[in-house]
Amino acid sequence: MTRPFKRPTDLAAVAALARALPAGDQVTAAAAAARQHRLTKPHGSLGRLEEIAIWLARWQGRQPPTLDRVLTVVFAGNHGVAVHGISAFPIEVTHQMVENFAVGGAAINQLTRAAGSELVVVPLALDRPTRDFTVASAMDDGELMEALLAGWDSVTVPLDLLLVGEMGIGNTTAAAALCAALYGGGGVAWAGPGTGVDAEGVRRKAMVIDAACERHGGAFSDPLACLARVGGRELAAMVGAVLAARHQGVPVLLDGFVTTAAAAVLHRLSPDGLDHCLAAHASAEPAHVRLLASLGLDPLLRLGMRLGEASGAAVALAVARSALAAHTGMQSFDEARVAPPHGG
Amino acid sequence: MTRPFKRPTDLAAVAALARALPAGDQVTAAAAAARQHRLTKPHGSLGRLEEIAIWLARWQGRQPPTLDRVLTVVFAGNHGVAVHGISAFPIEVTHQMVENFAVGGAAINQLTRAAGSELVVVPLALDRPTRDFTVASAMDDGELMEALLAGWDSVTVPLDLLLVGEMGIGNTTAAAALCAALYGGGGVAWAGPGTGVDAEGVRRKAMVIDAACERHGGAFSDPLACLARVGGRELAAMVGAVLAARHQGVPVLLDGFVTTAAAAVLHRLSPDGLDHCLAAHASAEPAHVRLLASLGLDPLLRLGMRLGEASGAAVALAVARSALAAHTGMQSFDEARVAPPHGG
Repeated sequence: MTRPFKRPTDLAAVAALARALPAGDQVTAAAAAARQHRLTKPHGSLGRLEEIAIWLARWQGRQPPTLDRVLTVVFAGNHGVAVHGISAFPIEVTHQMVENFAVGGAAINQLTRAAGSELVVVPLALDRPTRDFTVASAMDDGELMEALLAGWDSVTVPLDLLLVGEMGIGNTTAAAALCAALYGGGGVAWAGPGTGVDAEGVRRKAMVIDAACERHGGAFSDPLACLARVGGRELAAMVGAVLAARHQGVPVLLDGFVTTAAAAVLHRLSPDGLDHCLAAHASAEPAHVRLLASLGLDPLLRLGMRLGEASGAAVALAVARSALAAHTGMQSFDEARVAPPHGG
Repeated sequence: MTRPFKRPTDLAAVAALARALPAGDQVTAAAAAARQHRLTKPHGSLGRLEEIAIWLARWQGRQPPTLDRVLTVVFAGNHGVAVHGISAFPIEVTHQMVENFAVGGAAINQLTRAAGSELVVVPLALDRPTRDFTVASAMDDGELMEALLAGWDSVTVPLDLLLVGEMGIGNTTAAAALCAALYGGGGVAWAGPGTGVDAEGVRRKAMVIDAACERHGGAFSDPLACLARVGGRELAAMVGAVLAARHQGVPVLLDGFVTTAAAAVLHRLSPDGLDHCLAAHASAEPAHVRLLASLGLDPLLRLGMRLGEASGAAVALAVARSALAAHTGMQSFDEARVAPPHGG
């Protein structure tokens, strides 16, 4: 396993890499689409399964694409902003869940095993929560760069597909603040129940976000500064991982609200920054659907999930395996001696 | 493998069995729900994955439920109404696709293999298409009963989950006519592009359906008579299979529009007739979403599929396996020594 080339050395290099992106292999994508057209089914009748196969072919640059080497990376971080009582869980749970991942007891352990993915968990300085962003920048530039590189380095090739997700008590507040920083709209537009806070908790989250926007708003024209000011280590790591995947020819399944909020930084740096990503699902967090629409991403699944941990991405992987099985295993009209459709 | 008990001997017995239905095991369902509550995740955060596990437990009467023995049955039939040019494919394709199923070249072969289901294909008198229902009853009572029993007998227990689907050139017209017979609304309300006819083709389908309603409307108060008059052998077989599954304690994943239209006969016979069924997906056929709403079924997936063959059900099976993996494999808050949510 080798690490991505082009490893950035500072934030300017990250921004440059986020603006000079490979476009994927359109010739291979066209070959995959042509094969879909010849298979024994009405044209287009497998719907998004056909789209998935073509998307994998484009970004892997390989027809047929493969799903032999699939990696799920879950980044974990802790958040100073949790002091404001914006989660249903105490901050210790981040560390406890990392231990639960290690012994195989969490949802993502079962879901990656069921769908056929390796799982790597990357805890990021859990004993050093980010600073409370209502009073200071969550991270300084050095801390941001360290987290970005932790994500970058987690993408070890060869790899057919990357699933990214996160765990961090308080991080739906950081994600909502990051959305407010990138898109405006204030706390009310982006705060939601997260892991299960009540209406009073959602109001507290919105106030915390508004306080952060008040303090840091002057820096919000720079997407990476937004990430440093109101993000978190696991969000920054996901930015690094999704960007490294792009430069390595690895398609990405994005998980839920927090993952998508992190990915939005890349979309802000370049409008085509997430073309290699498929949104695995629309979570139950209300802001997620609005964020996906802002990014032009059509979520594959809508199962009311709101766990994080890459859990939605892992379920989408099971669907992607079905898509690939149909794409590679079906016979063509010629092979099967089935009459094609009129005009087909 | 044994056959279901209570095998009906005539249509009156079928109707009686469709009105005297087991209610599922609510005690076991409650035990499954209680386990979901103890697992290391915010309550309800796995969304419909939690619902699937509880649904399996209720209808299998077993906690934890299992998915070791999963059967997909695809029924194939031919339709006299195809003479009206209401399909993008010639009628020979039904037989050709049955041969394609036999050699493993169709979508459903790949999708059942990927998701872990046995596949059985049941061709129903393909050399004797049903009569053109614009001029006669599609089937007489003897033919209907024979098809119902072919479906009934396909459910061999022990079985953990049944997936039902179909193949039959012209059968979206039969399905739309059956919906019009069961719910009214006429041809325009229920006709759609099916495998890919153009707007003129959809108009022809609507006219064919209206002609059928004109001819047979007097019989439409009896759901089984609707099935005989404007249905088809594979639709009747699906009715038999879904009913047999209910009496044998086997939950069912329904496929797309044609399958759901057949299942609607059981809903018309008894409002709780489909309580053991989960709608695998909403297909791209426009009438499917309206039909699902009439039945009170919330489709699990919306992938723009419109192939039939149980293909949507097979993709949903992959999701159900993820749901079961999480339900059975996760640790509880106690086991993992993770702090539960406030008030949890």
